[in-house]
Amino acid sequence: MKPLPRQGKTFPNGESFATLCSKLGDLMQRLTSGAQTLYEGIRHLPIVSPHGHCDPEWFAQNSAFSNAAELLVIPDHYVFRMLYSQGVSLEDLGIGHAADPREVFRIFAKHWHLFLGTPSRMWISHVLQETLGIMTSLGADTADMIYDQIGEKLARDDHRPRALFDRFNIAALATTDSALDSLEHHQRVKDSAWSGRVIPTFRPDGVLDPDDPDFAENIRALAKLTQTDISDFSGYLAALRQRRAAFRDMGATATDHAIEVIWTEWLEDPDTLWPRVQSGAASAQDRIRFYGHMLIEMAQMSLDDGLVMQIHAGSKRNTNAHVMARFGRDKGADIPVQTDWVRGLEALLNRVGNRADFTLILFTLDEATYARTLAPMAGHWPCLRIGPPWWFHDSPAGIARYFDQVVETAGYYNLAGFNDDTRAFLSIPARHDLWRRAVALHLAQQVSDGAFDVSDATHLAQELAVGLAQDAYRLGR
Amino acid sequence: MKPLPRQGKTFPNGESFATLCSKLGDLMQRLTSGAQTLYEGIRHLPIVSPHGHCDPEWFAQNSAFSNAAELLVIPDHYVFRMLYSQGVSLEDLGIGHAADPREVFRIFAKHWHLFLGTPSRMWISHVLQETLGIMTSLGADTADMIYDQIGEKLARDDHRPRALFDRFNIAALATTDSALDSLEHHQRVKDSAWSGRVIPTFRPDGVLDPDDPDFAENIRALAKLTQTDISDFSGYLAALRQRRAAFRDMGATATDHAIEVIWTEWLEDPDTLWPRVQSGAASAQDRIRFYGHMLIEMAQMSLDDGLVMQIHAGSKRNTNAHVMARFGRDKGADIPVQTDWVRGLEALLNRVGNRADFTLILFTLDEATYARTLAPMAGHWPCLRIGPPWWFHDSPAGIARYFDQVVETAGYYNLAGFNDDTRAFLSIPARHDLWRRAVALHLAQQVSDGAFDVSDATHLAQELAVGLAQDAYRLGR
Amino acid sequence: MKPLPRQGKTFPNGESFATLCSKLGDLMQRLTSGAQTLYEGIRHLPIVSPHGHCDPEWFAQNSAFSNAAELLVIPDHYVFRMLYSQGVSLEDLGIGHAADPREVFRIFAKHWHLFLGTPSRMWISHVLQETLGIMTSLGADTADMIYDQIGEKLARDDHRPRALFDRFNIAALATTDSALDSLEHHQRVKDSAWSGRVIPTFRPDGVLDPDDPDFAENIRALAKLTQTDISDFSGYLAALRQRRAAFRDMGATATDHAIEVIWTEWLEDPDTLWPRVQSGAASAQDRIRFYGHMLIEMAQMSLDDGLVMQIHAGSKRNTNAHVMARFGRDKGADIPVQTDWVRGLEALLNRVGNRADFTLILFTLDEATYARTLAPMAGHWPCLRIGPPWWFHDSPAGIARYFDQVVETAGYYNLAGFNDDTRAFLSIPARHDLWRRAVALHLAQQVSDGAFDVSDATHLAQELAVGLAQDAYRLGR
Repeated sequence: MKPLPRQGKTFPNGESFATLCSKLGDLMQRLTSGAQTLYEGIRHLPIVSPHGHCDPEWFAQNSAFSNAAELLVIPDHYVFRMLYSQGVSLEDLGIGHAADPREVFRIFAKHWHLFLGTPSRMWISHVLQETLGIMTSLGADTADMIYDQIGEKLARDDHRPRALFDRFNIAALATTDSALDSLEHHQRVKDSAWSGRVIPTFRPDGVLDPDDPDFAENIRALAKLTQTDISDFSGYLAALRQRRAAFRDMGATATDHAIEVIWTEWLEDPDTLWPRVQSGAASAQDRIRFYGHMLIEMAQMSLDDGLVMQIHAGSKRNTNAHVMARFGRDKGADIPVQTDWVRGLEALLNRVGNRADFTLILFTLDEATYARTLAPMAGHWPCLRIGPPWWFHDSPAGIARYFDQVVETAGYYNLAGFNDDTRAFLSIPARHDLWRRAVALHLAQQVSDGAFDVSDATHLAQELAVGLAQDAYRLGR
Repeated sequence: MKPLPRQGKTFPNGESFATLCSKLGDLMQRLTSGAQTLYEGIRHLPIVSPHGHCDPEWFAQNSAFSNAAELLVIPDHYVFRMLYSQGVSLEDLGIGHAADPREVFRIFAKHWHLFLGTPSRMWISHVLQETLGIMTSLGADTADMIYDQIGEKLARDDHRPRALFDRFNIAALATTDSALDSLEHHQRVKDSAWSGRVIPTFRPDGVLDPDDPDFAENIRALAKLTQTDISDFSGYLAALRQRRAAFRDMGATATDHAIEVIWTEWLEDPDTLWPRVQSGAASAQDRIRFYGHMLIEMAQMSLDDGLVMQIHAGSKRNTNAHVMARFGRDKGADIPVQTDWVRGLEALLNRVGNRADFTLILFTLDEATYARTLAPMAGHWPCLRIGPPWWFHDSPAGIARYFDQVVETAGYYNLAGFNDDTRAFLSIPARHDLWRRAVALHLAQQVSDGAFDVSDATHLAQELAVGLAQDAYRLGR
Repeated sequence: MKPLPRQGKTFPNGESFATLCSKLGDLMQRLTSGAQTLYEGIRHLPIVSPHGHCDPEWFAQNSAFSNAAELLVIPDHYVFRMLYSQGVSLEDLGIGHAADPREVFRIFAKHWHLFLGTPSRMWISHVLQETLGIMTSLGADTADMIYDQIGEKLARDDHRPRALFDRFNIAALATTDSALDSLEHHQRVKDSAWSGRVIPTFRPDGVLDPDDPDFAENIRALAKLTQTDISDFSGYLAALRQRRAAFRDMGATATDHAIEVIWTEWLEDPDTLWPRVQSGAASAQDRIRFYGHMLIEMAQMSLDDGLVMQIHAGSKRNTNAHVMARFGRDKGADIPVQTDWVRGLEALLNRVGNRADFTLILFTLDEATYARTLAPMAGHWPCLRIGPPWWFHDSPAGIARYFDQVVETAGYYNLAGFNDDTRAFLSIPARHDLWRRAVALHLAQQVSDGAFDVSDATHLAQELAVGLAQDAYRLGR
């Protein structure tokens, strides 16, 4: 953005902005016509969703979703954090205690303008128009009507989870599940006549990180669940292997780690440290070193069982003590911090990073690491792939910065395609659609800049929309 | 920017660049026509200047400005730092000792090309053309003529401070004043028949920061000025409250803090630390902790008296020891450093940050914190607003990066509109004009990208030009 | 990049993408016509290459280059790092042991798609088409044919190093040479009838940095080469001065330092530290402090002998222990880290930074320092110039980010023009051409944004292409 040219820009006053915009639109139309064509070529491809937070119970039970508030507002921390930042109380939004869902939806509709310019507004607009067929624009005056229209839709069988899954043309959807999860819901989906591919992802931090508040309880549960004696370190590793196998049997192709400060370290004698860790007697430093060691153990297990490893690093969780105490985790107070991927992954990479049969996908919230760190690292280490823009950066400008900063050094084939990473099931098509539009615009720009030709762009569009994700997550083409 | 397309771009050699540019201009005209219309809708709105460094004495005395050098060169560290970086001595520019102002202006004019591509050049061009009506372009050959033309203008009554203030259509102008300031100049303005709204801002760092070289002297002056016994901590707080009240009585709506490394911390027993701080016996660590505590005390006082709190953090001051020793502060050697807003504000936010009746506006020089930190924080904490691009970033590309990186996560309503933050009074219209042009281009781009429609853009333009600043600073609409 | 507009964008399905792109191209043509003209004005200017890594022996011997693999693949770590990141073994690429060059080139050709979107692909395409006249596009099927075509070209006299140097229209080419280099190859070039200007650059880190693995051996060699007793510190300094003089006599105009973490510090008694450093008895901290002191000594020597000082900082070298052990340095595992220029250069700048007759050119891999640090520093300190985008950032988007983030604060005259910084001799025209295209697009955009006019842009284009580099490196115009 630059200031308007200062001279020779007098404009016919009589002309309406609408007319101007249609001219502008006409121009943008031509500018983006290449992008439009690339987009048309990928917009209807199946959705591959290799990482996200949908609840498998939805697909096991296949019950109708309740109402607009419980579907679009209450579970979406992107939405209520913004309302909270402008003085709306979380209680009034039905968070932490009961509230009339219609009233919650009214508050949301009344504050719809707060979301101008945010991806939340684009996703929700897409859900309302494309998925729920709401043609009225949202506002205080239309809140009740729209609430009722959504209610009617949700009551219909063709709006139950499995029906929407099929209608969304989802080829595969991975959930994220605790290492201690019984996987019963996934079992039910598997046993059902329904053919939808819903698979778990192994999320073991609760049984790996001694700083997890529930660590002691978790490892006891791990021992019980696996019927393994974990009093010595080898037993602990065996129990973890057993859980990984259970996840793999249920279709899992990947693991996931959520870490605030990334640190890996290979310990020569983890077995001597283990008893102190287990008993809670380990020092703060030893707890960090132990977790750093376990990340490498996980990477080594991946070499054996083929599960792709994901690391989501750099979010300082629950920075608002009052909100944490009153409402619990995931209430919009997680703030990104700087991430030192080079030193943090040094030990892990130097142990297993030269293995091309190992895949480690990295997700960052620190965009300063795109060009400086992640692209050079992914452009060297055989195991590394760069995950798509994550969380706050999964947006038009965020995606543009990502392509701008990673592609020239990492190329396209060191990227892991797209993840929607959402617990908002209805927004999945909207998120993939936004990605595909951004991909099309990026590639059309590359063509017009002479970086490569149309056939390359057409192929890359397919890869970025579906292929790279299928390969990176070993989901098959 | 990308390399030119490699094929099919042969260009008619005969054609002159002027012709090409007129075509180019014609195209840009159409591309920016939407922006042009948005701009026309806000360009003549009153100027709201809620933070800056004008001297209130100008408006109290209303004396004529002296000459072009003392108006445009000598007081502007943006200008002389650039000349110094290219080998011009500060002495020759009349800094630190007397110099013939005409000679100073000649040196400036001779080096005008150094400013190509900088906002200083855009602002000064605007001042010369729009405010002073100079139609000759600046250069070594025109320096004397322009110097004289400016001199004649400045001698006229309609170019005195109050007349220019009225002509600039300034609705409110806030100065920045030491907590120890007598506010006599503001009093004189208030007592005068002139209706211009010039208000002070409470800048207490000199009496809060034990590392301020004049701290001991300052707190003695504070005691004297407030006739308060500050030997105990409660007396010190009372004296500060008294000064805040005096500022509020003079129209102040805000406080301001300039901090190199942001740190806040709530002390359980500040009263026991206070005597050591007062006597200069506190350790370096205790001095930092005390200042960190006092920032929270200031925030709590804001809850009582309603003054909006501003923090400008991350400038390492006076990095050039020779220039500091020879010429003093603010001579262009202040360099931005990294800023850790998350950990630095943790204590303050966890004490008062959930109060929606408290407003804290944050200004950064570390753009890496826009998307990573400030936008997520402002998108959660009820008290937070993000200040406009500050200092080096108050420029076309700087403003573009700001919108690109903050809006998608923070939205528009967590922004504080615009500040000119200048001591160069004549440049105020130029700086607001540049901001309004950048706003118009940003919003027109959003419309053409389908982010929102024209009516939303038209409303947001008004908010970004005036409304958001009026609200954030509680100046009234 | 933003999502495509959501409404009114239905597109005629029948229309082929080629047609759309020609329209798009036509539009881009008009958009970039100003840039095109600026580019035409500089594209054929002589190449000034003041920093790079060509082997002076090429020009001393003037032997034919061997084959396509040894010319384009094996020596280029940009190329083999990418192949390695996708599972190609370095052994198969002929790195670390012999391999059939034809086979190496086949592997490269087969993986050509990996380079889509990277500058390596743009440079190599330019080399193949413009320099070697290969009109077939590279791929597995054409590898052998192209390998043979290149072989034939390389065998011709007009493709020997000196002939290409003349054909590339290189006005000056600086190599980078160890402080211990005999400079025999430069002597041979100088003594030859050939008029090409190939000059050395003084790279003394090996004899300055006590942490260099070969430091002890290096300083013994320094003593021997200079026949100087370096047992005391003054002798050591004298030996260094003697080497600088030898380089200057051979045409050198600059020195260069490659540093991971920048640190400078003035020691009051380096002579007492020197014996411990020499004997290897100095502590880790003292070794760092000594190197920090020696950087200031180098700066002071530059004030005496006029050699321009360059610092390339922020690359963590050889992060892959296996690759380092098996294949040695410079194998694509150097990863950028954060760089604190403010504190790191504080001591050096405060000692000599106010001297306008001293030139220090800074190169960063940490783009977060462009706007935050380097631009403000270069916009103040008389000695500082900002080097062009370095290493991973010497690319279309990288150059765009550079101009976007440095110019508004540093202006154009605090920049050092362009370096190709390459050991890939044949790519030099491609790299300068890419820079000149990016310069033209940047300046045309500035004109269309009203930042300055066409005559300024035309002049700045010349400066950025050639003039600024000639001045910064004291090569003469």
